[in-house]
Amino acid sequence: MRASRVVLVGVIGGSAPTPAEAVAAEAVGRLVAEAGAVLVCGGGGGVMEAACRGAKGAGGLTVGVLPGISRRQANAHVDIPIVTGMGEARNAIIARTADVLIAIGGSYGTLSEIAYGLGFDTPVVGLGTWAFERAGHPAVPLVSVRTPDEAVRQALFLADRRQL
Amino acid sequence: MRASRVVLVGVIGGSAPTPAEAVAAEAVGRLVAEAGAVLVCGGGGGVMEAACRGAKGAGGLTVGVLPGISRRQANAHVDIPIVTGMGEARNAIIARTADVLIAIGGSYGTLSEIAYGLGFDTPVVGLGTWAFERAGHPAVPLVSVRTPDEAVRQALFLADRRQL
Amino acid sequence: MRASRVVLVGVIGGSAPTPAEAVAAEAVGRLVAEAGAVLVCGGGGGVMEAACRGAKGAGGLTVGVLPGISRRQANAHVDIPIVTGMGEARNAIIARTADVLIAIGGSYGTLSEIAYGLGFDTPVVGLGTWAFERAGHPAVPLVSVRTPDEAVRQALFLADRRQL
Amino acid sequence: MRASRVVLVGVIGGSAPTPAEAVAAEAVGRLVAEAGAVLVCGGGGGVMEAACRGAKGAGGLTVGVLPGISRRQANAHVDIPIVTGMGEARNAIIARTADVLIAIGGSYGTLSEIAYGLGFDTPVVGLGTWAFERAGHPAVPLVSVRTPDEAVRQALFLADRRQL
Repeated sequence: MRASRVVLVGVIGGSAPTPAEAVAAEAVGRLVAEAGAVLVCGGGGGVMEAACRGAKGAGGLTVGVLPGISRRQANAHVDIPIVTGMGEARNAIIARTADVLIAIGGSYGTLSEIAYGLGFDTPVVGLGTWAFERAGHPAVPLVSVRTPDEAVRQALFLADRRQL
Repeated sequence: MRASRVVLVGVIGGSAPTPAEAVAAEAVGRLVAEAGAVLVCGGGGGVMEAACRGAKGAGGLTVGVLPGISRRQANAHVDIPIVTGMGEARNAIIARTADVLIAIGGSYGTLSEIAYGLGFDTPVVGLGTWAFERAGHPAVPLVSVRTPDEAVRQALFLADRRQL
Repeated sequence: MRASRVVLVGVIGGSAPTPAEAVAAEAVGRLVAEAGAVLVCGGGGGVMEAACRGAKGAGGLTVGVLPGISRRQANAHVDIPIVTGMGEARNAIIARTADVLIAIGGSYGTLSEIAYGLGFDTPVVGLGTWAFERAGHPAVPLVSVRTPDEAVRQALFLADRRQL
Repeated sequence: MRASRVVLVGVIGGSAPTPAEAVAAEAVGRLVAEAGAVLVCGGGGGVMEAACRGAKGAGGLTVGVLPGISRRQANAHVDIPIVTGMGEARNAIIARTADVLIAIGGSYGTLSEIAYGLGFDTPVVGLGTWAFERAGHPAVPLVSVRTPDEAVRQALFLADRRQL
């Protein structure tokens, strides 16, 4: 691995997903790992845990950027816990660290991560997540998809194009 | 002043507002100061600068939570510059520090601040800002208003109710 | 007040000072306020609280950059609570925001703030605080003083020289 | 790997080391990797780069917690770049993420990381680094060693004891 070459896919979403969202997150995690990319997330439960479980089931590597002060917060499928102690300000780190973000469902924390991603020019792929607009503002370049497969395909395409 | 009693009103919005947004921001700043509240913002240009100018014109106190590493970034109407050096992660600080947020226009940085506010239970009043929704998510408690006067009235009402 | 003109004096030190340290901190706070400067600190107890009490007794303005997620953490003499939610990472903010730091006693948190100050070229005045050295490293430009009066005099001199 | 089992060794030190410090850092990185631990550092040049080079030469995994906003800042031997965008506040993250810190030489940034480590109860091993004391303060539990071999041996012992 090399920083200059590794592809880091961020998976963002809430800690209380619907069963369908959890299934989708696990599939996304698996596909990210199968593509040889590293999974980055907030390290917690729900969508984060499901995505990590999927990635680990496929032999991938997972990074959890935790809000609290202890590694014990990490879900059981996080390989590399980054213990920030900075609360939700860590959302900015996830959005900067990932080459691309895949948002699955989620609540306001996820919305803040999507907003950060768009502000940092980190591409964002949405799977059943927030839609938003503002009168007078240019169209939001969030790529909406319908399946985990499409999400990961689009994400890898956008990450690849970004590194050119 | 006392931390336990001061009312801090956060004004958030972009650095490249329309003329109408800048006028609204200046009026909001003025009304915040006239109400005896302290204005908190990101300390930069555009909406932030207009709001600070309005507050100072009415004899108020302004706090700018700056992203960069120098006080020189602050607009000329910031009294207390907080130099974070933490980039956009400082958006979380604004949303935690304010008793209530007033969002005027804005781009993705503003959206991240709105999202943080909602996640932290800091009430958010919107004046020509983002609208958003997610299927399956409870309705977003963003209070939409049409005038600076309504914005500040609502903000003070929500800040007051929150401190009860 | 204007960001470009206000002098912000940071007072750093532990939450469990000796009685003599607390007395010194209160005197430092008073002298900072009498000089017309704004006091910045971590907003908590011990040295921070004593310094804020001293400043308020002299009619000054106090800013507390809090580590936690609630304004209720602030001591009773903080006027402007900045709620970072970023834990001890907020020490970097104090060291960047202040024009000059006065360290009184303190433990490892204070040492981290002194180190940040020196790294950011924020002058540091020490009153009974850490001494440190490393073989091969240039002499540390920490200004040691013996009284609150000397501390504030030196601090204002260094702050003034820095703004030239 | 599992978050609950991986050992993360933080290596901290300056970006402008002496040749002897760089040699020591490379040896430390190699020994960390040979022990099966993950290397965490600030991701930059000097001691950080030498340690990462040593770890990669021995087939290890390296994490760089970067201060800036781009992965391009990372030295060529960082596998997992964590892009914080938070400047030196990221020093707190390194000190929280590591099970144990090894400090090699260094300037004020390193001193801030040592101080954070001691404050967070992350054990710190020093190899030619800062010495410090304060009258009235309990003795500082920094473990001084003389060789890379001793540094890594002590670090692994302390990390292991900490997880009990």
